[in-house]
This record gives sequence, C-alpha cells and structure tokens, in this order.
Amino acid sequence: MTDETSHLRSDARENRDRVLQAARELFGARGLDVTMRDVARHAGVGPATLYRRFPTRQDLVDAAFEDELELCRSIVLEGAALPDPWLGLRSVVERTVELNARNQGFVDALVAAGQVSDRLARHRAELLHAMAGLALRAKAAGRLRPDFVVDDLLLVLLAARGLGGDDPAERLGAARRFAALALDSFRASATNERLPEPARVVGAVLRAAARPT
Amino acid sequence: MTDETSHLRSDARENRDRVLQAARELFGARGLDVTMRDVARHAGVGPATLYRRFPTRQDLVDAAFEDELELCRSIVLEGAALPDPWLGLRSVVERTVELNARNQGFVDALVAAGQVSDRLARHRAELLHAMAGLALRAKAAGRLRPDFVVDDLLLVLLAARGLGGDDPAERLGAARRFAALALDSFRASATNERLPEPARVVGAVLRAAARPT
Repeated sequence: MTDETSHLRSDARENRDRVLQAARELFGARGLDVTMRDVARHAGVGPATLYRRFPTRQDLVDAAFEDELELCRSIVLEGAALPDPWLGLRSVVERTVELNARNQGFVDALVAAGQVSDRLARHRAELLHAMAGLALRAKAAGRLRPDFVVDDLLLVLLAARGLGGDDPAERLGAARRFAALALDSFRASATNERLPEPARVVGAVLRAAARPT
Repeated sequence: MTDETSHLRSDARENRDRVLQAARELFGARGLDVTMRDVARHAGVGPATLYRRFPTRQDLVDAAFEDELELCRSIVLEGAALPDPWLGLRSVVERTVELNARNQGFVDALVAAGQVSDRLARHRAELLHAMAGLALRAKAAGRLRPDFVVDDLLLVLLAARGLGGDDPAERLGAARRFAALALDSFRASATNERLPEPARVVGAVLRAAARPT
C-alpha cells in the first residue's frame, strides 16, 4: 500500500466515522425521525459522500446502532456468564452506565423507539432475555430485591443519559457514583420499602423493535 | 374591562408564556448560550414582541427560571420543615422528580451552569443550604446513609431528566418508580456498600451561580 492509498483510506474511514457520529447524535437528540440531508449537514459532508457510504436510510440507522449494540451485547453476555449473579448484575450496571458516560448515544441505541432492522430487533430481544435470566438468578440467590423488574435496569440506563456534564472526567465520576447508588437500590435489603408500579420500558422497546421495517 | 381589552391581555399573556416556554426549552437543551433571536424564532413571535416583554437577555433568563425555582424552593422548605427528616427528604425527592416529569425544564433551571442573576444565585444557595441541613438531620436520625452528600440528590435530579418518554402518564410512572429506587439507595442499610467518590455537582452549580452578571 502506498502512502497515498493509505491516506485515501484513512480519509474514507474518517468520513464514515464522522457520518456515524453525526447520525448517532441526531438520532439520540431527536429520535430516528431525522433526514439524510440533516445527517450530511451535521457531519459536514456532501450528500454524495453520505449516499456512497449508506445507500438507504435504514443502512445508516443500522450502522449507527451496530457498534453500540455489539458492545452492550458483550457486556450483558459476559455479566450473565459470571458464576455469581449479583456480581454479574453489578458488572452490567457499572459497565453500561460508564459506557454511556463515554458515548452518549449508547443508551439511545439500546432503547431507541422507532424502526430498527429485524437483526437489531432480535439483538435487543436477546439482550433483554439475558438480563431477565440474570435477574432471576440474582433473586434466587437472595441478593436482588424480589420486586426488581428488568424495566428498572432500563430506567437506570435511561436516567444515566440525564447526568450530562461537559467535562469527560466529571461525567465519568458522576456515572460511577450513580451506578453504585443504583446497585444499592437494587440490592435485597430488610430496609427496602414497597415500590410503586414498575415503569413499562421493556414493553415500549419491544413494541418499537417489533415494527415492520 | 371590555371583552376586547380582556382579549388583548390574554393575547399578551399567551405571547409571554410562549416566549418563556421557548426560552426554557432552548436553555434546557443548549444551556444559557442561546441568542434572543433564537428564542423569538422558536417561540414564533417577532423580535419586537420579545424585546417589549424582556428588554435584556438577563430579564428573560431570570423570568424563565423564576417559576421553577420558586416551586423548588417551596418543596425544599416544606420538606425541611417536617419533624421527621427522612420523611422530609423523601418528600423532596419524590416531589422534585415528579415535577421534573411534568416540566422538563425544572431541573435545568435549578442546576443550569452559566450566568444567573444575584437574586437567583442566592435562591439556589439557600436551597442547597436547606437540603444540606435536612441531610444532616436524617443522618443523625440514622435513616440516611452516612456517606450521602447533597451532590447525590442533585445527581438523582439530573438523572431524572434522562427518563424522557413522550406519554405524560408513562413519564410520571417512570419518575415515581425511579424516585422510590433513589430513596432506597439513600437509605441507611446494613447492606450498603462503600460508594465511589462523590460527584461534584453542587460545586459546579455554586461556581456557575457565583459568576458576575
């Protein structure tokens, strides 16, 4: 490979990353109801460049969410594989909340309402299933409060989006403290009080995922 | 008052409300770094109408945050006045998180970084002071975990912004469940584990509030 082709390839990759970054930001801020033109403008690339990389809007949506879901998948499957289910749950909460502090589009990719491809919908259903299994085992071990539902985990992930903060180190510190508090709220404890009705986050995600694409 | 003047007054009030609503939305989404022109456009009123109601940008900022801070103030002072400090703290958490579910600009008004008037800065300092006093009493009563800091309450309020949701009833349900979980995480319990370093939210708010205006 000559220096020039290497340079061209790195330009192409940079454009692709920039488009995906812009798409994630816009999808995160406004949901999936964003035009290709908006994404191109936000990324600072021409429409031709955008359509060369992503011929259809669905290609762009899938690609924008692909990396985040893959990361989330490995976090959940690794957590579920730990012998101690409470340590598994802790690992899932800590890693997902921290990841969200580093990449604000992450949770949006997981819970985004709206059309996603069949593949991503199956991916999400698999994740929710693995989380539910982990929760069952942690309850059976007497570590997780009996009235915990997987929606509570999604609630904490959604909430982590609100932590914000411009400084990356402060954002990460806030995420860690928040994750530790969330874990203490999930823990089975004699002092826990009765919770109000669960929020219906999982249902909304699955309904959104089940829409035809 | 004739029907016509009554109609004019209601028009004027509607414009004012629309401008304040637009200002809160933009301040909430982008912080205080928003131009008067942006606010007028977002509110769908002419610049003349905007400047007639709010001669300076500072007038607009103060007015946009005034109502929310007044509400927050009564919530905190009423909570702090309850004889049982844990019930006081619970009331503050539940009411502020629920209020935020109804009015998404509420927490932004409380924690917005950036310039606010001396009056609002004093207001915020007074609230933080009252919350700190309540926390001290709840710790002394053995109900609040000893490693709780007021930053944790602000962290929960910031996080509540992330709950989102388009349906008001679902949003309120999620807020209530989240507030109950947050309270259980604050509760003194034998099963609580050591938390990571506190996030420095209060410091950031006070630094922001102390800037000259």
